[in-house]
Amino acid sequence: MQTLLNRQVLLKARPSGIPQAEHFEIVETPVPAPNEGQIVVRNQYLAVEPAMRGWVSNVGNYAEPVPLGGVMRAFTVGRVVASRSPGCAVGDVVTGMFGWQDHAVVDGSMVQRRITDLELPISTALGVLGLNGLTAYFALLDLGQPKAGETVVVSTAAGAVGSCVGQIAKLKGCRTVGIAGGAQKTALCLSEFGYDHAIDYRADQLEERLAEACPNGIDVYFDNTAGAISDAVLKHLAVGARVIICGTASIASWNPPPLGPRVERHLLVKRARMQGFLIFDFADRYPEGLRALTDWVKAGQIHYREDILDGIEHAPDAIAGLYRGENLGKRLIRIAAD
Amino acid sequence: MQTLLNRQVLLKARPSGIPQAEHFEIVETPVPAPNEGQIVVRNQYLAVEPAMRGWVSNVGNYAEPVPLGGVMRAFTVGRVVASRSPGCAVGDVVTGMFGWQDHAVVDGSMVQRRITDLELPISTALGVLGLNGLTAYFALLDLGQPKAGETVVVSTAAGAVGSCVGQIAKLKGCRTVGIAGGAQKTALCLSEFGYDHAIDYRADQLEERLAEACPNGIDVYFDNTAGAISDAVLKHLAVGARVIICGTASIASWNPPPLGPRVERHLLVKRARMQGFLIFDFADRYPEGLRALTDWVKAGQIHYREDILDGIEHAPDAIAGLYRGENLGKRLIRIAAD
Repeated sequence: MQTLLNRQVLLKARPSGIPQAEHFEIVETPVPAPNEGQIVVRNQYLAVEPAMRGWVSNVGNYAEPVPLGGVMRAFTVGRVVASRSPGCAVGDVVTGMFGWQDHAVVDGSMVQRRITDLELPISTALGVLGLNGLTAYFALLDLGQPKAGETVVVSTAAGAVGSCVGQIAKLKGCRTVGIAGGAQKTALCLSEFGYDHAIDYRADQLEERLAEACPNGIDVYFDNTAGAISDAVLKHLAVGARVIICGTASIASWNPPPLGPRVERHLLVKRARMQGFLIFDFADRYPEGLRALTDWVKAGQIHYREDILDGIEHAPDAIAGLYRGENLGKRLIRIAAD
Repeated sequence: MQTLLNRQVLLKARPSGIPQAEHFEIVETPVPAPNEGQIVVRNQYLAVEPAMRGWVSNVGNYAEPVPLGGVMRAFTVGRVVASRSPGCAVGDVVTGMFGWQDHAVVDGSMVQRRITDLELPISTALGVLGLNGLTAYFALLDLGQPKAGETVVVSTAAGAVGSCVGQIAKLKGCRTVGIAGGAQKTALCLSEFGYDHAIDYRADQLEERLAEACPNGIDVYFDNTAGAISDAVLKHLAVGARVIICGTASIASWNPPPLGPRVERHLLVKRARMQGFLIFDFADRYPEGLRALTDWVKAGQIHYREDILDGIEHAPDAIAGLYRGENLGKRLIRIAAD
């Protein structure tokens, strides 16, 4: 095949907190020819995740940090444009951790999923039908164990994961309360994601509104924030509550760990539990989750939003933008037409 | 029956933190005659518990606080000396929440347990064969779910609950690490309670010693402290760790809640869980726990220590003394001979 030029987003400097545009640089390099067993993937959508903050940090984490000078690690969806791997054919639509770049030359075994049902847009493979939806599904159902009639509170309620948590909880017969930042997101919580109540943590009296919305306490709290919102929610737990720790978006840096009100007494008095969640622990059950999520999305029972930036030049600032709360829905970068 | 004089320890003032001697007063009142359905219990041993701090507090708790001027709530063991209840006979050895007083006149239904196996001292009914042993049994086995070969760390390791947790963990094939205050208690951890390692949090470099004693991380942490000890332990959790919150002895007051390093990132990175435990939730399974504990104690597989104060005049200062760490083993007040 002819030599292709590859735009790649490299990690240039290691941030101590949230990665900003200046921590990345865009370079252009030739795409190497694939070796035996390798494929070339033309990425179409690059994902942007809050978790990327952890991937570039060298503070204790669940994976090795992205090396300085390396292509930014990212989930992508794209098409196979060359293959020397027997399992992959040119034209296959595939997802994998193919990085923030136009083309990825990787071993065929790096394909995480081959998408054969093309009825829904392929971008969904990075959001509601990808790790975001799967996170919502397993975190809520396995760790949260919601029962019909219970009250489920979701922080980052309009986000890619949170919006899905709220809708699954509703499908399971729960009362749902979403916490989000700003009038636009809280409106979306009510109009699009079916929450029974939506609280704007920037404008509303969070504690009072929580007390009103959860008169019998909170049975399940799905958290992506770990800051002042959690401190308020934990005061309203019901006996036997389950708190799912999925992310810590409101904490700018964990080095050193910030202080907060101690949680032990809440847990003790309410016999509640707090549990950390990592989607990769559920890898062998992804097919189960994807089947359920696909059915719900096709049936119109789960709605999703995407926030699509056009062009790889948006990548360097895209994570910082997430933490500024500027996206509505799953943030993606489109670098090639469908 | 003739009029008996009853020494009672009343709650005189409500402490904001740990109750001290001056918060109680001892009065002498006549014992009323029992009504139909009531019994008179002559208390022999009065229990002293760390949890009593919560019972006298009007800050959010799992039971109504002891009223000002009321007899201090306490578990006791004693003998029935008069009965107008068909289920109780004079001479029965019974336990219940009969309070810090010589005699309790209560409804027969208030008896929690009639002790028929008198092979072991009746004082054990307030400790290793009472709520302390039951707490250790259900908290460790149900919440902690220890597996053979795992590392179990216990704070207040020489205490009435902690010593039992360590020994049950050992019986289940775990490596056990006890944390206690002072050389005498750590010696007891090794000589009496079978811990593989004992750490004196007052003298040792806690973090270094934990790292040495737990090279593969900590799988189960049974905690009674909630302070600096926990902050150190949480840094060494293994993936999938279980943290049992049973008490918060190192926190002088929860009003307002003290600050500590936020725990969310530990829980997230290690997919660990923290869970509060209250023994009363397991009331319907006490017989199972008591059978196991009784067998272990009789077989010499679980050792226990008691710290017996003679005379009700020791009661007012007895809780503060627990928090000063002056007892070795379960603290009891003996007010009548066996």
